[in-house]
Amino acid sequence: MTDTSRPQRTGAVKQITSHSNPIVKEIKGLVSMRKFRTQSGLFVAEGLKLATDALDAGWACSYLAIGPEARDNPIAQKAAATAKARGALILEVNTAVMAAMTRKDNPQMVVGVYEQRLLNAEAVDPRQSTVWIALDRVRDPGNLGTIIRTADAVGASGVILVGDCTDPFAVETVRATMGSLFHVPLVKMQKDKFKQLAASWPGSVVGTHLKGSVDYRTPEYKEPTLLLMGNEQQGLEDDMASCCQTLIRIPQVGQADSLNLAVATGISLYEIRRKQLEL
Amino acid sequence: MTDTSRPQRTGAVKQITSHSNPIVKEIKGLVSMRKFRTQSGLFVAEGLKLATDALDAGWACSYLAIGPEARDNPIAQKAAATAKARGALILEVNTAVMAAMTRKDNPQMVVGVYEQRLLNAEAVDPRQSTVWIALDRVRDPGNLGTIIRTADAVGASGVILVGDCTDPFAVETVRATMGSLFHVPLVKMQKDKFKQLAASWPGSVVGTHLKGSVDYRTPEYKEPTLLLMGNEQQGLEDDMASCCQTLIRIPQVGQADSLNLAVATGISLYEIRRKQLEL
Repeated sequence: MTDTSRPQRTGAVKQITSHSNPIVKEIKGLVSMRKFRTQSGLFVAEGLKLATDALDAGWACSYLAIGPEARDNPIAQKAAATAKARGALILEVNTAVMAAMTRKDNPQMVVGVYEQRLLNAEAVDPRQSTVWIALDRVRDPGNLGTIIRTADAVGASGVILVGDCTDPFAVETVRATMGSLFHVPLVKMQKDKFKQLAASWPGSVVGTHLKGSVDYRTPEYKEPTLLLMGNEQQGLEDDMASCCQTLIRIPQVGQADSLNLAVATGISLYEIRRKQLEL
Repeated sequence: MTDTSRPQRTGAVKQITSHSNPIVKEIKGLVSMRKFRTQSGLFVAEGLKLATDALDAGWACSYLAIGPEARDNPIAQKAAATAKARGALILEVNTAVMAAMTRKDNPQMVVGVYEQRLLNAEAVDPRQSTVWIALDRVRDPGNLGTIIRTADAVGASGVILVGDCTDPFAVETVRATMGSLFHVPLVKMQKDKFKQLAASWPGSVVGTHLKGSVDYRTPEYKEPTLLLMGNEQQGLEDDMASCCQTLIRIPQVGQADSLNLAVATGISLYEIRRKQLEL
């Protein structure tokens, strides 16, 4: 996804004090506009924890901006040294520049810019898999990030974004993953490709559906399981529902129409884990 | 919670075309400032679905603002008639005023202002209860709203806010409840009061804790169950953890540090439901 027209970064340190510095403008664009993220193949992750996660997991870092409070922090120094050794440009910025870059009054002390990793359909190998979560047109960044976090927690093989989904590299999504973005393979595919994958899937293919006739605790969830979750507003479309061997339903009393997508995914994943690990 | 110094509203219809109308300013304040919500005892819920939920559940409505697209909508007309019959002031506004009130470019076609309902500790009657969810210093509005939505879905008896929590009547919280705010009793109490409640609780008192020694699937979750969930960053404080008979842990593999609070609450609640309903 990297835009090869960008100049090659070499490991270096640069002080920035002006809001109008072109790198500051570039980072602002990456924070606020999906278009800039897609064009450059880059994204922004805020905070020292995420920087450490990204670098430990070997993600390519273009810039690591370090605020004044982080200069004496040994973990931040280590992250900066690692990033610099791998060719990142380390930006020493003041608090005002950090706030401007991230459009926040109380910015984090470290902000990193990394190269996106979004795999294509061929990256899904069912034979090596426990469970894949496929999301049909997921819209909410917080839901997507939370699902990636839960996927990590249950040891899922990855998350598949089907069709027109919210940007997994939006700042809100990245934040909600709490670093799991750097550990969980993300795959993007169109609907036709997904249908082919589901048709040849060797294990269980299960979708959640309000009209699902099977209680979510009933299926055996044969490994590898492919769990398909629908869009927040409309649920699964009919043609996507028909890809599934089983449509499950999480029972509800009360007057709620439905569960939040990330909650429903979490409940389903823990049930799948229970069955697969025979616990 | 109602501020009795506010003039009594009488059922009426008023056209508003100016952003500087005092009622528009009042609603803007309720949307953006917790202080104004607390002082007035009022809050804002966006959208026709929430207006219908609120009115069906008998919540007192102060204002119901109706945008141009909603004037011919029979559901909106019915909501306006119900609200007016109960003394609400119906505001016929244009799209620009609606956008200004809610600080949104694409506002909903209906926005309601309702009286808050926040019960005190005496409202919790364990003998009549299935499960109560107690949240210790919950911070994220989306998490709180999602937990209220899940509480509704499992037929919980209510949600207890312990100590300094995010505002349950913030617009983001109300939105995340998807209308369940109007169906789930909400109680606010300080920590000491909660400790008294937990000490005399007739059923199981269970807390989730990263250091919990008991798998979440193990307890019998004797009815009524009191489920205590800690703060997003710090989890349960020691003195709160010591209120619990059992500290449970939701097992995790992978490199995630923890689950999202609303997801962990959802997984715990569905396990409690499973045990209590013997399913």
